[in-house]
Amino acid sequence: MRAPPARVSLPAMSRFLTPHAAQLPSTVPFTGPEALERRTGIPFRARLGANESLFGPSPRAIEAMKAAAGGAWMYGDPENHDLKQALAAHHGITPAHVAVGPGIDGLLGLVCRLTLDAGTPVVTSLGAYPTFNFHVAGYGGQLSRVPYRGDHEDPQALLDTARATGARLIYLANPDNPMGSHHPASVIEDMVANLPDHTLLILDEAYADLAPEGTVPSIPADHPQVIRMRTFSKGYGLAGARVGYAITNPDLALAFDKVRDHFGMGRISQAGALAALKDQDWLRNVQDRTVAARQRLSAIARANGLAPLPSATNFVTIDCGRDGDYARKLLAELGTRGVFIRMPGVAPLDRCIRISLGDEETLDILEEALPLAIGAAG
Amino acid sequence: MRAPPARVSLPAMSRFLTPHAAQLPSTVPFTGPEALERRTGIPFRARLGANESLFGPSPRAIEAMKAAAGGAWMYGDPENHDLKQALAAHHGITPAHVAVGPGIDGLLGLVCRLTLDAGTPVVTSLGAYPTFNFHVAGYGGQLSRVPYRGDHEDPQALLDTARATGARLIYLANPDNPMGSHHPASVIEDMVANLPDHTLLILDEAYADLAPEGTVPSIPADHPQVIRMRTFSKGYGLAGARVGYAITNPDLALAFDKVRDHFGMGRISQAGALAALKDQDWLRNVQDRTVAARQRLSAIARANGLAPLPSATNFVTIDCGRDGDYARKLLAELGTRGVFIRMPGVAPLDRCIRISLGDEETLDILEEALPLAIGAAG
Repeated sequence: MRAPPARVSLPAMSRFLTPHAAQLPSTVPFTGPEALERRTGIPFRARLGANESLFGPSPRAIEAMKAAAGGAWMYGDPENHDLKQALAAHHGITPAHVAVGPGIDGLLGLVCRLTLDAGTPVVTSLGAYPTFNFHVAGYGGQLSRVPYRGDHEDPQALLDTARATGARLIYLANPDNPMGSHHPASVIEDMVANLPDHTLLILDEAYADLAPEGTVPSIPADHPQVIRMRTFSKGYGLAGARVGYAITNPDLALAFDKVRDHFGMGRISQAGALAALKDQDWLRNVQDRTVAARQRLSAIARANGLAPLPSATNFVTIDCGRDGDYARKLLAELGTRGVFIRMPGVAPLDRCIRISLGDEETLDILEEALPLAIGAAG
Repeated sequence: MRAPPARVSLPAMSRFLTPHAAQLPSTVPFTGPEALERRTGIPFRARLGANESLFGPSPRAIEAMKAAAGGAWMYGDPENHDLKQALAAHHGITPAHVAVGPGIDGLLGLVCRLTLDAGTPVVTSLGAYPTFNFHVAGYGGQLSRVPYRGDHEDPQALLDTARATGARLIYLANPDNPMGSHHPASVIEDMVANLPDHTLLILDEAYADLAPEGTVPSIPADHPQVIRMRTFSKGYGLAGARVGYAITNPDLALAFDKVRDHFGMGRISQAGALAALKDQDWLRNVQDRTVAARQRLSAIARANGLAPLPSATNFVTIDCGRDGDYARKLLAELGTRGVFIRMPGVAPLDRCIRISLGDEETLDILEEALPLAIGAAG
C-alpha cells in the first residue's frame, strides 16, 4: 500500500478502491487503431497491426450472425452447450474439457483470478503478450520475465525460472506473438514432461490454426498441469465476436464456473463461432491464403532491404536491422501513410516491426507505402 | 480456508487454485432456459423467465448488427468511443462519466474487483439480484442482507446496516428485481444524501427505461459516492448483445481501465447498442407496449385468483397467496407446460412468481397454461 497521493491527484472515490486497485495504472495493453486514428486524424487505409484476419470469417459465420441478430433480445445460453459440444467433437475430447469465454484475453484473466494471490510467482517471456502481464498485475501476481532465445521463447529457461521462483503459472505462446516463431510439437511436449509439480502451463495457441503441420503438441486433455487457449479471433476471423476457449482437464475447466460471467457470451457471437467451426473448408482456404500472403509480405520486406522472420502466424515480424528507435520511427512513418502496424515492446525484439497479413489490395497499399516510410525514417 | 476435501473429490488441479477460489462453488446465479429445456426435454413455448424484451430491439439495431457482421474480423474499439459519446449526449454528461462493459453483470464484477478485499463489508437486500452476491462472494467480500420492507427494498435499513458494518458498498436496484417495485426519485435522493462517508452506492437502474415517470433520481454525475448501472438488455431489448454502462464520477469511471478487458466489447454489439440508443422512438413504443402488457398480465393473474404486484419493470411479480413451496410447484407446473418463468429465491418474497412481459401471442400461451398449472399445483 502506497502513501496517499498529493491532494491535487486524490480522487474523491479513491477511498473506495482496494489498496491494490488504487496502485494499478488506468492503462490499456494495446491502443486500438480507432484511437490512433482519432489522435492523428489520419484514417488507416491498411489495418495491419492487430493480427486480425483480413480474409474475414466464413460467409456462413456471417450469415449465422445476421440470422441471430433478430434474436439478440435473448441472453446467450450460459452453458455454451452447443458450442462446447461442437468443439469437443472437433478436438476429439469431451465438453467437460472445454471452457468458453470472451476471447483468450478474457480467459487469461479468469485463470489469473483463479490461481493468483498477492505475490504468487508467475513466469513469462520478456516481450511476450502484454495482456497476460496486465492480468497478472491486475491480480497481484509476481511476474518474472525470461529473455527470448534469439527469436523464440525459451522453454528451458522458462522451466528453470519456474523452478527457481516456485511459479504457479508459466505462460507460453506457440506459435509466438510478437515474433511469429514457433517450436515444433516435440519441444512443447518435452516442456510439458518437465513441468515442476507446482506449475500450470498456460499454452496460448491463438495462432495454432495457422501454424505449419507439426506445431501442435499432443497433450492428453486430462493433463493436470496444462491449459490450452484457442480462439475464433485469428484463423476463424472473428476477433470482433469475442469467442475463445480453453482445453484442459475437467476439474480446471469446471473451476471457471466459480468466477466467470455466466451470461457474458453474446448470443450472436455464439452463433457465429458455431458456424465458423463447422466451415472447415473456409479455414483451409484461409490457411492457403495465409501461406501465400506470408510469402508476398516477406518479399515486400526483402525488396526494401528488410529481413522478414519465418512466420507460423497471420503476421510477419520483420527485422529492420537497426535499433528500437529506428523501428519505432518506421512504424510512425507507416502510420502517417495510413498503414497501421505494431511492433514488439522490448529490446532486442524491438528492432522488428510486426505486420499482419493482408489481402492483395491491402498488401498493395503496404508495398507502396513501405519504401516511402523507409525513406522518411532515414 | 477449508480442510481439503476427501481424496475422491480432490481434483488434480486443486493445488493451482487460490484458497479462496478453491472454496468457491462452481455455480451459476441463474440456470438458463436452454439448460432447463435440455434437462426436461420440454421446449419452452413462452420464454418469460429472464426479463428479456419480447418486443425485441429496434429494427434499426438489428440492421446495424447485420451490417456489422461482415466486419467482425476486426476487434471492437477498446475505448468504446462512439458509444460513450452518444451515451454522454443522451444523458447530458461527458464521456468521462461513462464506463462501458459487457452488461451490468460484467460491470458489477468489475466494481467488486476494484473495491473488495477479503472481508470487506457489503450490504444488499435479502432476495435481491443474485449475480451481485455471486461477485461479492467471488471477490471475498462480506455480505450483509437486509430484509425487504414489504415488497420494497428498504433504503433506511440498508443505510443503517452500512453504517453498522462499515460497508464499502450498498447495492440497491430501483426499480427492483425480483419484486418489480420501485421507490420514487425523492427516496433515492434522500438515501444518497445520507450515505455514510465510507460507502459507495451501486444504484442498479437496469429497468429505469421502463419505469414510471418520477422514478429516476436526480444525482450529479460527479457525485463521489454513487455509481449508476444501465443496460441495453431490458428496454432496448439487446440482452444477447451484452452491453451495459455505468454512470459515475470521472475518477471512478477511469478506474475501470485498471482492470477491464479492454478488447472485450464485441464489435457487432457496439454497433447494435449505438443504433438502439439513437432510436428513441422504438424505446417509446416499447414503453407503451410495456404498460399495456403489464395490464394484461396482471389481469390474467387476477382472473386466476392470484395477486399481481404493481410493476415498474418489464415483468410482473405475482403473489400466489401461499408459501414458497406452492409457488415453486406452480413454477414447475408452468414449466412442464412450456412456460419459462422464475421466482424470488428467499422467503417471504418466494410466495411470488415472476413473469416477464410478453407480446400478445406469448401472453396467450400463458393465459391458457396458467389455470392448468394452478389446477395441477393443487
